[in-house]
Amino acid sequence: MSQFAPKTALIVGAGSGLSASMARKLTGAGVKVALAARNSDKLSGLCEEIGASAYSCDAASAASVTGLFAALDKDAGAPDFVLYNPSARSRGPIAELDAEEVKNTLLVSAFGGFLVAQEATKRMLEKGEGAIFFTGASASVKGYAHSAPFAMGKFALRGLAQSMARELQPKNIHVAHFVIDGGIENMERPERIAPAGKPDSMLDPDAIAETYMAILNQHRSAWSWEVEVRPWVENF
Amino acid sequence: MSQFAPKTALIVGAGSGLSASMARKLTGAGVKVALAARNSDKLSGLCEEIGASAYSCDAASAASVTGLFAALDKDAGAPDFVLYNPSARSRGPIAELDAEEVKNTLLVSAFGGFLVAQEATKRMLEKGEGAIFFTGASASVKGYAHSAPFAMGKFALRGLAQSMARELQPKNIHVAHFVIDGGIENMERPERIAPAGKPDSMLDPDAIAETYMAILNQHRSAWSWEVEVRPWVENF
Amino acid sequence: MSQFAPKTALIVGAGSGLSASMARKLTGAGVKVALAARNSDKLSGLCEEIGASAYSCDAASAASVTGLFAALDKDAGAPDFVLYNPSARSRGPIAELDAEEVKNTLLVSAFGGFLVAQEATKRMLEKGEGAIFFTGASASVKGYAHSAPFAMGKFALRGLAQSMARELQPKNIHVAHFVIDGGIENMERPERIAPAGKPDSMLDPDAIAETYMAILNQHRSAWSWEVEVRPWVENF
Amino acid sequence: MSQFAPKTALIVGAGSGLSASMARKLTGAGVKVALAARNSDKLSGLCEEIGASAYSCDAASAASVTGLFAALDKDAGAPDFVLYNPSARSRGPIAELDAEEVKNTLLVSAFGGFLVAQEATKRMLEKGEGAIFFTGASASVKGYAHSAPFAMGKFALRGLAQSMARELQPKNIHVAHFVIDGGIENMERPERIAPAGKPDSMLDPDAIAETYMAILNQHRSAWSWEVEVRPWVENF
Repeated sequence: MSQFAPKTALIVGAGSGLSASMARKLTGAGVKVALAARNSDKLSGLCEEIGASAYSCDAASAASVTGLFAALDKDAGAPDFVLYNPSARSRGPIAELDAEEVKNTLLVSAFGGFLVAQEATKRMLEKGEGAIFFTGASASVKGYAHSAPFAMGKFALRGLAQSMARELQPKNIHVAHFVIDGGIENMERPERIAPAGKPDSMLDPDAIAETYMAILNQHRSAWSWEVEVRPWVENF
Repeated sequence: MSQFAPKTALIVGAGSGLSASMARKLTGAGVKVALAARNSDKLSGLCEEIGASAYSCDAASAASVTGLFAALDKDAGAPDFVLYNPSARSRGPIAELDAEEVKNTLLVSAFGGFLVAQEATKRMLEKGEGAIFFTGASASVKGYAHSAPFAMGKFALRGLAQSMARELQPKNIHVAHFVIDGGIENMERPERIAPAGKPDSMLDPDAIAETYMAILNQHRSAWSWEVEVRPWVENF
Repeated sequence: MSQFAPKTALIVGAGSGLSASMARKLTGAGVKVALAARNSDKLSGLCEEIGASAYSCDAASAASVTGLFAALDKDAGAPDFVLYNPSARSRGPIAELDAEEVKNTLLVSAFGGFLVAQEATKRMLEKGEGAIFFTGASASVKGYAHSAPFAMGKFALRGLAQSMARELQPKNIHVAHFVIDGGIENMERPERIAPAGKPDSMLDPDAIAETYMAILNQHRSAWSWEVEVRPWVENF
Repeated sequence: MSQFAPKTALIVGAGSGLSASMARKLTGAGVKVALAARNSDKLSGLCEEIGASAYSCDAASAASVTGLFAALDKDAGAPDFVLYNPSARSRGPIAELDAEEVKNTLLVSAFGGFLVAQEATKRMLEKGEGAIFFTGASASVKGYAHSAPFAMGKFALRGLAQSMARELQPKNIHVAHFVIDGGIENMERPERIAPAGKPDSMLDPDAIAETYMAILNQHRSAWSWEVEVRPWVENF
């Protein structure tokens, strides 16, 4: 079995947590990594650590996204693998939500995913291979009360990922969607650390990244489109 | 069993087809009906026929939607029942889609649903009862190739409807989402008429409206949140 | 629109509750009703009240089911509409379940559904029309802890219903599956009556039956395959 | 992160294909493997090749399954990891199916899964860890026409797997269900080899086994319950 082996990768919505874990695993596998975030300053430490490049990008802006890919074309080259992580949230009873925040949640969580995926697709179709992954949440498949905007954004992103899988997988581009069903642990934020009495009750970002890497390494005769991950003690 | 019986209704995205069938059934049941569409001129015939009122509204504009509800408050009174039908479509390979059209599809199909539902919810919470229905499509639950924008919009609308059901049903507001899985027949457009050799192979809008009315009349001890309808010969 | 109008009906798994409500609504609509249960003695009151006939049948036994249909052929004639309700339950941690009870749950809940549906299908194919409905539960779509046997039986019944819908709907036989997501109220059993402080928090069997009748009356250009019903205050 | 590392494994429904691939990968990872099949004679070649043990077992018979586990207890020790593969099929229009074959399909595909999983669970609860995987198919989530018995069996197995995941994952036993959405390639059967013009259009059993191993190696803070795999060119 010959398998897809990306040489260049782009992680959008990069920060600490899952993005950093993925960036480390990818560079560890010899992949040249570019990181994009609305504010790229916060990425400097990670970039230095692993030799990645950072780009500023507003994923919900078409001009910003085309600018990002133009810069990548000149620098490391178009990415063979793209991971889209960004989402916004606005919570509250339906009657109290702010309309502009709801629109922003929809645009950052889903429309930005389209913009990034479209630029990536154009280049992967030329190369004849590639992989595009989307990070979803519990809200991708279940609309919780008081969380309508996040559900709207994540449901929409899942619809995008499913439509793209049906179109692009037969063109040798692996499209996958991940349902992260639980809180991701963040050792830098005390409220995001699993309590001592409930070990491993939040998702370790390195553990998620291992599953992403396994899916990225799948042979194309047996690709997964959707994978869910949750802590052993999580209700579902 | 006592049941919810709406006195006033608003149909957004009104035109021919399902909206007209629903408007006729509602007025036939003694409900005062308001119809809203981007261009309300086309509604004049139906309004005259059934004694409904027509309003112009751009559902994706917050100002336009609040304006619509303010007008209703003054005229027939806030609606006890609201049906949201609008959607936009842009089709094509992911690499060829126009970003502005994709955004518009998302805003009309889903964000407009939020805007209308929010105004309706505020008023129904005060009344202590109400019903809000959303019209979905095959694309609400399946992302087809070359139809990513429509899938994004319809998936998002379903996420909204599910979140609202969880929040509002315990407050006596019935929220339902319909998956119309097939083409709706339109006797005024030859390409939308079921061929003679395949009778009833497109959804009769009166038949859909009967199911909507049955769901609207459900006793609250047994509410449906989601109902799918499809022609007997449709593949699924 | 011409619509299917059954003249004869069979309800399997008949007792109090949903079956009795359906029997009353069907006879009220002029349908000749036959009721089948493992022990038909308990049906005598209802039969007398509405003029229905009662049959003893072990739905999980092929011989018993073919015997039931042979008797119907001679008596009221083959049913145009069949409703399958029976299920068994065995609960407990997976390690403590009794294997024979698990097998029985599977056979009564699902295999019996096949046996009854097969006999009904043979006759409806000859008539060129018919309707077969299956009663499911929350467990039809969600496998709860400590309830594996019921989940197995109800998942299997749903698989049967879906496969039959795909085969038989294009042959003019309406196949529908209902997800009853909550407890059905039973005024004769104090523990199955909704508490006064939580009105309508259990499903009124008459309310469920109204939705069944609405689905039975659907025009074939807009048939539902699956419908869920739950109390307004139910978590889902 | 510390991770579960099985020392002993049992594959039920072992033959060529996926079972053999898994057996090789497990022994390659230092796991002692036992293989069980209705007819264990056909396993002798594989057992010799990888140093595994073979057992005869009728998975749908409670006595046979308890016998199998008793033998394992004495021999290699209770398995830390169990994979359940068996299924039976009977195809045809609903009216033409043989009732005994339908029952057998249900018992082999689903009831046998319960019997094996129950014995495995008893032992894993004592050890405080373990993993139980179930092999599903397209029919696990979609009931195709003319394939009702297989849908019944595979839906039921999925219900079992979901119920077990909810009960047992918080007890440190990883339960996973795989949806194999396509034909598995078998180089020994000409009709099961992907045509030259459609490379990788059938699932390579080694590729499936790699994904199973990745899921088996997941850290418990990020377990997957369900994973689907399909060829890049498969319609879905």
